[in-house]
Amino acid sequence: MNHPVHRFYAALEARAWTEVAALLAPDMIYELPQSRERISGRADYVAFNVAYPGAWHLSVERVVGSGSEQAVWLTVTTGADVATNLAWLTLDDAGLITRLVDFWPQPSEPPPHRPPYVERGWHLGHQ
Amino acid sequence: MNHPVHRFYAALEARAWTEVAALLAPDMIYELPQSRERISGRADYVAFNVAYPGAWHLSVERVVGSGSEQAVWLTVTTGADVATNLAWLTLDDAGLITRLVDFWPQPSEPPPHRPPYVERGWHLGHQ
Repeated sequence: MNHPVHRFYAALEARAWTEVAALLAPDMIYELPQSRERISGRADYVAFNVAYPGAWHLSVERVVGSGSEQAVWLTVTTGADVATNLAWLTLDDAGLITRLVDFWPQPSEPPPHRPPYVERGWHLGHQ
Repeated sequence: MNHPVHRFYAALEARAWTEVAALLAPDMIYELPQSRERISGRADYVAFNVAYPGAWHLSVERVVGSGSEQAVWLTVTTGADVATNLAWLTLDDAGLITRLVDFWPQPSEPPPHRPPYVERGWHLGHQ
């Protein structure tokens, strides 16, 4: 739990906004490449999360990385909705988050003509 | 380039199938959580890639991880189509890939009522 990535997501889940802000560099950048959206600065990033609709809950599935580059796989549950969140974090020397790039891959149907050895229907699981 | 992850994607890009197979554990599992598809075993995984339609080209943007857990961010270009691929790899003690979980997040529109400090329209970039 001393890992800044774990502390960050635990603070988000707890809506511990002061702690969330304390783990972010003041000029951090938040990016959503799929929708080409960006937020600049921790004040707006925290405000975005404070205002975010829905009773969402985060569960960290995997954290990989070393030093300043980390990748995180999360499950985000909002009522009956279960989403996957893949986040790429950059940390500075003090362990503060300077960049957070968030992906939200959605369920999809396979393309036609998959080969027969492609099994289908297992449940989306994190491990 | 000695990193097994870099060697793996370079071999895929080169269609160097013998080299691709040599970097995989025989009983590796390939998973596509978004479509709930799975391929079991390197023979079928290699066959899947050999048969995959389109003149795709891979470009590794970021590799993060340490030891047996790695996360990779790639850009995959097929003609005019530019896609993002996020892969989570598990390696065994010999550096062979035992599990590869592939996500393909698609472009999306933002939900309505985004706050005004969310900028829009920057180009999807890897860095």
